[in-house]
Amino acid sequence: MPPLDEDALLRRAARLAAGDIPAGWVGPGDDAALVPRGDGWLVVSTDLSVEGTHFRREWASPRVLGGRAVRVAISDLAAMGADPLGVLVSAALPADLPEGFAEELIAGIEEAAGTLGAPLLGGDLAGTAMGIVLDVTVLGEAPRERVRLRSGGRSGDVLAVTGSLGLARAGLHLLEAGRAPAEAAAVRRFLVPEPRLAEGRWLAGRPEVRAMMDLSDGLAVDAPRLAAASGCGVVLELDHVPRNPEADIVAREAGEDPVLFAAAGGEDYELLVAVEPGAFEALAGAFVREFGRPLSPVGRLLEDPARREAVRNGVPVAFPAPGFTHFRGEGG
Amino acid sequence: MPPLDEDALLRRAARLAAGDIPAGWVGPGDDAALVPRGDGWLVVSTDLSVEGTHFRREWASPRVLGGRAVRVAISDLAAMGADPLGVLVSAALPADLPEGFAEELIAGIEEAAGTLGAPLLGGDLAGTAMGIVLDVTVLGEAPRERVRLRSGGRSGDVLAVTGSLGLARAGLHLLEAGRAPAEAAAVRRFLVPEPRLAEGRWLAGRPEVRAMMDLSDGLAVDAPRLAAASGCGVVLELDHVPRNPEADIVAREAGEDPVLFAAAGGEDYELLVAVEPGAFEALAGAFVREFGRPLSPVGRLLEDPARREAVRNGVPVAFPAPGFTHFRGEGG
Repeated sequence: MPPLDEDALLRRAARLAAGDIPAGWVGPGDDAALVPRGDGWLVVSTDLSVEGTHFRREWASPRVLGGRAVRVAISDLAAMGADPLGVLVSAALPADLPEGFAEELIAGIEEAAGTLGAPLLGGDLAGTAMGIVLDVTVLGEAPRERVRLRSGGRSGDVLAVTGSLGLARAGLHLLEAGRAPAEAAAVRRFLVPEPRLAEGRWLAGRPEVRAMMDLSDGLAVDAPRLAAASGCGVVLELDHVPRNPEADIVAREAGEDPVLFAAAGGEDYELLVAVEPGAFEALAGAFVREFGRPLSPVGRLLEDPARREAVRNGVPVAFPAPGFTHFRGEGG
Repeated sequence: MPPLDEDALLRRAARLAAGDIPAGWVGPGDDAALVPRGDGWLVVSTDLSVEGTHFRREWASPRVLGGRAVRVAISDLAAMGADPLGVLVSAALPADLPEGFAEELIAGIEEAAGTLGAPLLGGDLAGTAMGIVLDVTVLGEAPRERVRLRSGGRSGDVLAVTGSLGLARAGLHLLEAGRAPAEAAAVRRFLVPEPRLAEGRWLAGRPEVRAMMDLSDGLAVDAPRLAAASGCGVVLELDHVPRNPEADIVAREAGEDPVLFAAAGGEDYELLVAVEPGAFEALAGAFVREFGRPLSPVGRLLEDPARREAVRNGVPVAFPAPGFTHFRGEGG
């Protein structure tokens, strides 16, 4: 079967919807929609988790799987610099779930929502003859000046990422290989992603941060998305991509280049920002002092929107292939 | 397979979430959640449409099916008395859809959203090996005094419904029987439901209207829900249930009692209100003058929450069985 071209369909939806979106609002195409209300923004986004596409039932307890769907969705609020107000969760559930499965799934949803300060406000449930589908809508708010779109970057801006990349992909690799001790940091990173809410708020509050998004599909896919939204091209400096030592071990065991493994990545839910070049060094210093985690430069925005380049140790190399279009397409 | 007890699971979710919901907010359990913001309410709800549970692909064009999912969801805003701000739509779509299906589905979603003044603000798409799942989140707002919960009813209140009931169920019956000309009013009512936004706003603006919800599962299911939320019992006066002549014909052809057919109903998306008894007659008169459609008394709230009764031509009869728990359970 030909894969669904999700990006093309989403672009089509955004084009159709454009005529209905009031001036001054932000509609489809960014990490979340923005509706101006009072002296701030209402921030809203929705995120599907489909069994067999985004997760497998046997990977973890229903409690962990429910929590994961919420955590992934809330990352979209982090990506805008917003504060969570709450979540709504819809679940289509097969009738043949084991006893207590639905209850544990709901408990995991509520637990993650409560932990992240986004109370479970509502939702819907329906039976299905098929697999589990979870859809999490996140609702947040932000002061008028404190949101960052994907589209604010300018030619010459430094692209930088929070934390390190590749560990979630390593966790997925272990899960898919069936050798995943639940306590492994990699597996935990994949199953219990940490939305970078505090980092997102902090970064969105800095005028030198011009664009922001969260890294869900991997730097190799998401950096070109931010660049395209900003009307720019992009060059990635692959040897600068911050890696995790455990991810490196898993990558080598899998016979993959650890640098490309981290750059392709996926599901890290770290933040990608475009920063005014002259201000980057001071910003990165302040970030590490504030959060004890790095803000690492991984490339630049280029003037020509057609350029999509990669450099490694100063030498031009092929732009990394996407590592992760949901797990079924890994390595595709 | 035992059917999923959706109500029990939703109650469980509401209990779990209760501790996280800030004071003065309305969390799970009503037609929508309410978040106080500025001098009004933010109103938000989400609604699943699952292939094989809520609809069949062969019933209508993808454009109509997409529009239906949006219309059903927006009815939750009508039920609160809210004004739409926008919708977000998530779609899990099989890879084997016919050429152009996904595009038409999206066009129908956008069209319905635009028509109802609720621009398509965003969404998510994912492939699935299973059937179509649509989840529509609606976002709205309302002035602080102009929302009505299910829980505001009091003993003695008149229960009343807008319009007439049973036509959507007749449409479903025709669709399921495979003899459904697209132009039949019954089929159209089922496939293109009309959220009663103007009626909802008007009713919520009247102090004598104490509780409100939309009729999605039929009066026989939804009236006890409103009563329970209000801490009351309920008596339905079945011969007063406003019926549609076309629905009566379909009911008789199906060998069903037209009165029970309309009372069980389902998918009408009319509004059910609890009204201060002394003010009902004037309200109903003003309603018909404003909208050219009736507001018909169909029963009363009772003091004893354990009472659930029905009367027909003054004679006590069995409380009508639910007619419609999604189409798979029709008649169950």
